[in-house]
Amino acid sequence: MNAPAAHLVPDICQREVPQALLDALKERFAERCSTALVVREQHGRDESSFAAPPPAAVVFAESTADVAAAVQLASDYSVPVIAFGVGTSLEGHLLAVQGGISLDLGRMNQVLAINAEDLTVTVQAGVTRKQLNEAVKSTGLFFPIDPGADATLGGMSATRASGTNAVRYGTMRENVLALEVVTASGEVIRTGTRAKKSSAGYDLTRLLVGSEGTLGVITEVTVRLYPLPEAISAAICSFPSIEAAVRTTIQIIQLGIPIARVELIDAGTVRMVNAYAHLSLREEPMLLMEFHGSPSGVKEQAELVQEIASELGGNAFEWATTPEERTRLWTARHNAYFGALQSKPGCRAISTDTCVPISRLADCLLDSVTEADASGLPYFLVGHVGDGNFHFGYLIDPGKPEERAIAERLNHALVARALKLEGTCTGEHGVGLHKMDFLVSETGAGAVDMMRSIKRALDPKNIMNPGKIFTL
Amino acid sequence: MNAPAAHLVPDICQREVPQALLDALKERFAERCSTALVVREQHGRDESSFAAPPPAAVVFAESTADVAAAVQLASDYSVPVIAFGVGTSLEGHLLAVQGGISLDLGRMNQVLAINAEDLTVTVQAGVTRKQLNEAVKSTGLFFPIDPGADATLGGMSATRASGTNAVRYGTMRENVLALEVVTASGEVIRTGTRAKKSSAGYDLTRLLVGSEGTLGVITEVTVRLYPLPEAISAAICSFPSIEAAVRTTIQIIQLGIPIARVELIDAGTVRMVNAYAHLSLREEPMLLMEFHGSPSGVKEQAELVQEIASELGGNAFEWATTPEERTRLWTARHNAYFGALQSKPGCRAISTDTCVPISRLADCLLDSVTEADASGLPYFLVGHVGDGNFHFGYLIDPGKPEERAIAERLNHALVARALKLEGTCTGEHGVGLHKMDFLVSETGAGAVDMMRSIKRALDPKNIMNPGKIFTL
Repeated sequence: MNAPAAHLVPDICQREVPQALLDALKERFAERCSTALVVREQHGRDESSFAAPPPAAVVFAESTADVAAAVQLASDYSVPVIAFGVGTSLEGHLLAVQGGISLDLGRMNQVLAINAEDLTVTVQAGVTRKQLNEAVKSTGLFFPIDPGADATLGGMSATRASGTNAVRYGTMRENVLALEVVTASGEVIRTGTRAKKSSAGYDLTRLLVGSEGTLGVITEVTVRLYPLPEAISAAICSFPSIEAAVRTTIQIIQLGIPIARVELIDAGTVRMVNAYAHLSLREEPMLLMEFHGSPSGVKEQAELVQEIASELGGNAFEWATTPEERTRLWTARHNAYFGALQSKPGCRAISTDTCVPISRLADCLLDSVTEADASGLPYFLVGHVGDGNFHFGYLIDPGKPEERAIAERLNHALVARALKLEGTCTGEHGVGLHKMDFLVSETGAGAVDMMRSIKRALDPKNIMNPGKIFTL
Repeated sequence: MNAPAAHLVPDICQREVPQALLDALKERFAERCSTALVVREQHGRDESSFAAPPPAAVVFAESTADVAAAVQLASDYSVPVIAFGVGTSLEGHLLAVQGGISLDLGRMNQVLAINAEDLTVTVQAGVTRKQLNEAVKSTGLFFPIDPGADATLGGMSATRASGTNAVRYGTMRENVLALEVVTASGEVIRTGTRAKKSSAGYDLTRLLVGSEGTLGVITEVTVRLYPLPEAISAAICSFPSIEAAVRTTIQIIQLGIPIARVELIDAGTVRMVNAYAHLSLREEPMLLMEFHGSPSGVKEQAELVQEIASELGGNAFEWATTPEERTRLWTARHNAYFGALQSKPGCRAISTDTCVPISRLADCLLDSVTEADASGLPYFLVGHVGDGNFHFGYLIDPGKPEERAIAERLNHALVARALKLEGTCTGEHGVGLHKMDFLVSETGAGAVDMMRSIKRALDPKNIMNPGKIFTL
């Protein structure tokens, strides 16, 4: 149980869940509706450092019809519904801050249609990205979006996720073509088609992607696939300073080199990864890079990048060309989070997610490193720096409110800096519970009011994951 | 005057424009508010074959404050406002079908900020794509979206335009980063930032892109730029049949070759272009292609494509490597529309815009060619075939209703086929007046109702370009 040690979210309005609704759900879903405390608690938290009372019940949906039925019942009783995939949100999206029921879509894990000849695949919302890639492996295609966690396609759509490959392949915004969605009234609608582009009315697909479960429950997702590159090479390069690594990244992007991944890890985080995964990576700021293309294209890209890096003081590249070596390298990157948690036993990470225009990256990052170092709080620092996006994870002892206060102060300073530099408070994690005030600072009260108007129009009873993104 | 010969749109509800509003506009805008018939008629039509009574007045905005003031006044009197760029819509977007005022943004043509180091540029909505490319030329960057017409960035955003380069660089959906918008109440809001990605709340940018002026007036647009490719080559290849050209395209896309343009022109259209532009292109189905990249990358792409084309019966490539030769080649493509109009004096074109998944392209296109040939109606046929998008332009004598009826029948059959093949009725032109029924067939009544709910929430008086996309 993480919840007791986590930060309690003030109950905005813990709505009543009538026994009659629970009875109706039990009748419709039998043992697939659980009110067991352990099940509810498991569905009442995520990877954020927040806690709230668990939902009143968990419904395990196995079909779109199940989702529609559950939402209709919830609508009848004006009770909140929170869609749940695998629980990897970092922003409190899954917490039942206004009570209600959790709708677990994990069993909706069918790959419905692989259209390899069109480079598209349609899946149920509970399919995870690793499962998807396993399913399409034999076609010579792959789905590039990789947020680290093995999240579901529904969850990734709902948060507009991205991750390491986005610098080349874009985010869920660019890669979701079509959705099936259960609306707040329990109606099933479809948005988009498998055609690559369309001007057919409002872009409901893009409105729902990133809506964090507040406008409807995503039940099916059609995404773009890409041919597996003929050649893939990955490399590590260490730098004398974070600044040198960042300036190398900026030049790569400004020159338009189609690099597939360029990830920053700072020296302290390399140390944590080494300890966690028994590696012996050089404990200096490093860039992890990957190049995709034809053999000659990859060679060309790599040579250009090596030249830039070496001019800025980077060491020789260490190459990983076999799939096994590459997996090892990227596992190191994905272990940064766990390595950091292990470095301070019992700690929790408060993660930042700013993203700025590439030319502002050094300004945004370097001052924030100075501030974090001065604070004395341990942290990890990783970044999808090719997109101008990076994450500090401030490691706090949840029993020490003063550490949380320091982390929040650092986060506020960082977000303020990013907004001043024309960036965003969240590149890929979403607003959730934690960034509502930042959202207003970023986009202005008028734009947030427009979001509220849309929410009220599409969910008049405010039952779809209420209390996230903004309060009504 | 095209209007008298065009197809009259039934007045859904020609709302009254009170003299008090005209007086107030005259007071605020003086000579920048015109009620002269010639000005109103010029703003009351577009490149579509529709006609409606002209707007009651035309306001020439020179600033966002002007737009806000005009919209506020229109809102006070519940009078429709139709934003006008350069008038190149093909779908009747600019017609005052419910009366009201036209808001000409053509004078808002300032390039506000070129951020070359971030590959972004911010412009006022009245800047045209050619003007934009001229303005950024010295930076070594370019804006790729090319719908043919020299449209404004505001208009291109409002219709989610794309064109010849979209196969590689995406559409306005992928390339607009941020907007400034005047809402239906006359409030100025901003959506998005210059950061490359964001998960900050609802994607208002993508909702407004493609909303056809029905949710607000776009006043500023921030778009992505791209480094001018180190090498560019363009080539023409003729084929023994449309099918061979289409099958070549399908293979290019399925192999993931990053071709920058691949355009189909059928033999009849080549003939029209030759006559119009005094060219001597081989009068066979042809693909016009362009390759962008490093010199070796371009060579590699071109070799692969030549191999595919030759296996499918394509002739040797004719290359255009100098900028002048390339311009000549693409001018030929862009002249297809005018060449076609000239081929049947006095005619108007009814343009189709279906887009299907690439594997369905041959099925969709070939049967439609057979049908069009059998109808006896002359037509042009061009296509952004790499995206699965193509346009028939049925050439009708506007004085002969029977020709319009044939064209509409062909269009209906084509759209029905495209929808059955999981495509869309409009790849890039928008719904406007002509495709409302198709939109319902495509996405379902539930999704269109969701669009209506959003419209009602954001424009409760229904004054923003009413009567387009759907009726309320």
